[in-house]
Amino acid sequence: MSDRRIAAVQTVLQQNEIGALLASVGSDLPYLTGYRAMPLERITALVVPGVGDADLFVPELEAPRVATAVEVRPWGETTDPFDLIASALPKSGIVAVGDQMWSSFLIALQERLPGIRFVDAESIMAPLRMIKDEDEIAALRDAGHAVDGVADELATLRFSGRTEREMSRIVSDLVLASGHESVSFAIVAAGSNGASPHHEASDRVIRPGDAVVVDFGGRMRGYGSDTTRMYCVEETPEGFDDAYAVLEHAQSVSVESVRPGTTAQAIDTAARSIIADGGYGEFFIHRTGHGIGLDAHEQPYIVQGNTQEIRVGMAFSIEPGIYVPDRWGMRIEDVVVVTGDGVERLNRSSRALRLVE
Amino acid sequence: MSDRRIAAVQTVLQQNEIGALLASVGSDLPYLTGYRAMPLERITALVVPGVGDADLFVPELEAPRVATAVEVRPWGETTDPFDLIASALPKSGIVAVGDQMWSSFLIALQERLPGIRFVDAESIMAPLRMIKDEDEIAALRDAGHAVDGVADELATLRFSGRTEREMSRIVSDLVLASGHESVSFAIVAAGSNGASPHHEASDRVIRPGDAVVVDFGGRMRGYGSDTTRMYCVEETPEGFDDAYAVLEHAQSVSVESVRPGTTAQAIDTAARSIIADGGYGEFFIHRTGHGIGLDAHEQPYIVQGNTQEIRVGMAFSIEPGIYVPDRWGMRIEDVVVVTGDGVERLNRSSRALRLVE
Repeated sequence: MSDRRIAAVQTVLQQNEIGALLASVGSDLPYLTGYRAMPLERITALVVPGVGDADLFVPELEAPRVATAVEVRPWGETTDPFDLIASALPKSGIVAVGDQMWSSFLIALQERLPGIRFVDAESIMAPLRMIKDEDEIAALRDAGHAVDGVADELATLRFSGRTEREMSRIVSDLVLASGHESVSFAIVAAGSNGASPHHEASDRVIRPGDAVVVDFGGRMRGYGSDTTRMYCVEETPEGFDDAYAVLEHAQSVSVESVRPGTTAQAIDTAARSIIADGGYGEFFIHRTGHGIGLDAHEQPYIVQGNTQEIRVGMAFSIEPGIYVPDRWGMRIEDVVVVTGDGVERLNRSSRALRLVE
Repeated sequence: MSDRRIAAVQTVLQQNEIGALLASVGSDLPYLTGYRAMPLERITALVVPGVGDADLFVPELEAPRVATAVEVRPWGETTDPFDLIASALPKSGIVAVGDQMWSSFLIALQERLPGIRFVDAESIMAPLRMIKDEDEIAALRDAGHAVDGVADELATLRFSGRTEREMSRIVSDLVLASGHESVSFAIVAAGSNGASPHHEASDRVIRPGDAVVVDFGGRMRGYGSDTTRMYCVEETPEGFDDAYAVLEHAQSVSVESVRPGTTAQAIDTAARSIIADGGYGEFFIHRTGHGIGLDAHEQPYIVQGNTQEIRVGMAFSIEPGIYVPDRWGMRIEDVVVVTGDGVERLNRSSRALRLVE
C-alpha cells in the first residue's frame, strides 16, 4: 500500500517539477505510511523526494510504536530536528508541505532553506486521497453501519430530563462500543441550541417539545463516520413538521443527484433549490457536505463555486439543514460513496423524524 | 482578561516592531479570547494589530457559539477567507503567527502578502503563557487533584485479565467522571509495552507479574492535567524494585530542586544524574518534563540545553522514566507549579508502587 501510494506521489512530483513532499501532523502521513503522528511539539515528518527512497523522521521515544515500510530515522531529545529534516530536502526549487503541518515547523524549515519555495501539498494529495480504494470504502462502510446502529439505539432512549452533555456522553460511549477506535464529535443540540450548526453540548436540560440535533462520528480502522439524525421529545415544536418534510425531500433529491460526471456544486444546488422553494432558503446557512476519509472533513467540498467533477470512489456527506434562530434547527446527514452507476449510501438508519421520551 | 492579555501582546509587538499577531488553531487563541477554534479546514483567525482593535474572523456557522469580548467578523461559505484576513494585516514588515496554525493557511497568506515576513509567534506568546495567573493555577490544581482521585481509584481495580485497551477506556471514563471536559490521552502500557514511552493501548491482555505504566490527563476549564503512576499485578517483575527505588528518588529530588532562579536544564540534570548514578542512565530516553497549561505540552521544556530561567507561576511536569527494552518500563509524573519559595505539587496521590489484582 505505502509503496504504491508513494510511487503515485512521486509521479506527480516529477510531472510538476516539485523536489519533494513533506508530510507531518494530519492525514497525508497515515495515507502514505500507515502511521499517524501525535499533534505534539516534537516534529514527525515524512520526506518523499521526487526520486529515491522516502525517510520518516520521528522523535526517538515514538520510534518503538512506528510500524511502516518506510525507512524510519529517529531523532534524539537534544537534536535539532529541523536541521536534520532540512538536510534531507533539496536546497532550491519547490517543496510541497502537508496542509495541517504546524506553521512553526514550516517557518523553522523556511529559515533553514531560503532557496526553497514551499507550496501547499493539498493539490497533490487531494486528487489521490479523494478516490477511495476498496479497502478504504470497506472501512467507511463499516464505520457508517456502526453509527447507524447507534442512531437506532438512541431512538429507544429517554432524552427528557437529561442534559445535552449527558446525552453527548451516551452517544460517545455508544460510538466506542460500536467498534470505533475514537470519537471525533458528538453534537447534541436541543431546542434553540440546534440553530447553531456546530453547537457544543451544554448543561441545558432537554425537555418535552424540544427538537434535538444529534450529529456524531468517529474513526474506525482510521476512517471516519459522520451522521446526523433528528429526535423530538414527545412532540414536534411549532413549524417544525413542515420544514422537516422539505429538508427530507431536499436531502433525498441531493443524494439521488450524485453520479459520476456531475459537479460538487450541482449536488449543493440540488439540495439548496428545494429548501429555497420551500421558503427556508435563508435558513440553510452552510454548504451541503464535505469529503470524508482519513480526515473528518476533506475534499471534495459540496459547495457553490466548487466545479470539481464527481468521480467513482469519492466519498462525502450530504447534510442540508434548516436553522431558525431562537427556535430550532434541523439537519439530516448521510455519507455516500460514488459508484459506477450512481451512489451507495453508507448510512441507512431511518431518516424519518424520531419521537422519543 | 482578554483586554489585559491582548494589551500585553501589543506591547511586545510594538517593542519588536512586529506589525500584527495572527492566532488560529492552537492555544494562543483561547488564551487571548477565551475561544478555541475547531481544527477544521474553515479558518478561524484572530488578528491583533500592534495598535488598535483586534478582529476575530470566524466561519459564519461557528459565529453563534463564539462568546468573546473581541470583535467577531463572520465569513460566509462562498467567501475567500484568506483575502479577508490578508486585508486586515499589514502589507509589509513582520507578522507573527501562532505555532499550531495549519501550514496551508500560512502558505495561503504568504501568497497574498509577499511583502510580509512571517515569524513564529511562540517567542511572543510563550513568555506570557508560561507565567500562570491565579485563575490558571486554580484550574491546573483542580485538574491535578481530580486525576489524583482517578489514580487512587485505579489501585482498587482488577487489572489482570483485562486488555490495555479496556483499562484505557476505564481510565478515560474515570477522568471524565472526575469533572474533566475531555480526555487528552490515557496510556496503558503493560509489560514490555511499557518500554515505549508513548505506547498506544493495545489488545494485549494484562497478566500477573506485569508492570503497567498508566499515564493520563485531560482538560478541566481549558487547562491540562497529566500524571503517571505505576501498577504491578500481584508481584513486581525481576529487576523492577531496585530501579523503582532509584526512579522514585530521582523524581523526588528533581521536584525539590525546583525554585525561582534555577534553570530548566538544571531540573533535568537533578533527575538524570541520580538515574545515571543508579546505573540506569542509558534507559532514561526522554526529557524530564514539559510545561502544561492550555496546551498539554508547552514551554518551559525541562530538557538539557534549555537555559530558560525558572520563575514564579510556571507550571510543568516532572516525569523521569526508566525503559528497559523487551522487559518493562516505568515513569513517575507530577505536575508542579513554581511558588515564591519553591514548588507546589499539583499531584499528591501516592507515588509508591501499587500492587493490584
